[in-house]
Amino acid sequence: MTELDDLIKHLSMLPSVGPKSASRIAFFLVGSQKGFNESLSRLIGEIKEKVFPCPICGSYSETSPCPICSDPGRDQSLLCIVEQPQDVLTIQSIGAYNGLFHVLGGTLNPLEGIGADKLNIRSLVERVEKGSFKEIIFATNPTEEGDTTALYIKRLLERKGDFIFSRLASGIPIGGDLGFASRNTLMRSLRGRTTF
Amino acid sequence: MTELDDLIKHLSMLPSVGPKSASRIAFFLVGSQKGFNESLSRLIGEIKEKVFPCPICGSYSETSPCPICSDPGRDQSLLCIVEQPQDVLTIQSIGAYNGLFHVLGGTLNPLEGIGADKLNIRSLVERVEKGSFKEIIFATNPTEEGDTTALYIKRLLERKGDFIFSRLASGIPIGGDLGFASRNTLMRSLRGRTTF
Repeated sequence: MTELDDLIKHLSMLPSVGPKSASRIAFFLVGSQKGFNESLSRLIGEIKEKVFPCPICGSYSETSPCPICSDPGRDQSLLCIVEQPQDVLTIQSIGAYNGLFHVLGGTLNPLEGIGADKLNIRSLVERVEKGSFKEIIFATNPTEEGDTTALYIKRLLERKGDFIFSRLASGIPIGGDLGFASRNTLMRSLRGRTTF
Repeated sequence: MTELDDLIKHLSMLPSVGPKSASRIAFFLVGSQKGFNESLSRLIGEIKEKVFPCPICGSYSETSPCPICSDPGRDQSLLCIVEQPQDVLTIQSIGAYNGLFHVLGGTLNPLEGIGADKLNIRSLVERVEKGSFKEIIFATNPTEEGDTTALYIKRLLERKGDFIFSRLASGIPIGGDLGFASRNTLMRSLRGRTTF
């Protein structure tokens, strides 16, 4: 295999990069500035040393604990549970949430051998026992796995104290079209209807 | 700027990688195997040394001249002119062309200051003068720039010998729908209609 084929093979293993994009990127790199390739190469080579899971919430960070966990200005009574580190970024980007986060690292999936021990659930329970949380918000994806995982964790945490449990609303996306919504989405949006 | 932000910024400069894909890839790299990141980093860092333009046809290669130019088994009477090195791969992948290639490196674009001197046109003229080509196939894109560039080169080469000039057929894509074809595509496919 040539170096170019090998590069294309590696690039096509990245998420959201198909075989056509992989060759387009590889050809771009052959023709691009040497300095750009050197920076990109260095950043990729070092990223795992520079960025690591926060020991408290499990989100990716370059400091330990992460800036969110170590910010006393955030609402210490709110905990938002998400599946992946990038979900923290997504929620942070809307600028409307000022509580803390906990990253599970996935969802329960017994068929693929992902049990509770493979997720950051034990650390979550310990954190909830020691913390001063009042509300626990489930922001797992509205999928069967996300829903099951949220329900499992809710049952665990219910024994640990008197918390308000909530979850993100599901429904028709803003700007969306009823005709394109799935039956499940419509059902969920009907059940979760709000007065106005 | 953190290392993660810097990595996302670099990744989003790659072709066909938008800001959302760039963060998805960056998070994937934080969580992936160290060995994978090291290989990818090395491949990106070295690719410009390993892969370079063939001095004859301008296509990217890891040998000089490239395997196509140095293959005596290919039809030395056929020359296919393309815009970019990846176009050589695209045409090679269908396995139906056995002639030689010439890569222009772009199209004429006076508004952006891309004149004939910025493209591999001089080397093309010299190659055609010295070679034994009978047919010259234009495989530039069916865009205004591609068409103009093909016409410009055709006029240059007409003075150099008695060649057959041809171009790839344009028309409705196989599996396509007349209703989705643009007026120009329909006009081109009508003019280029074939008997059956």
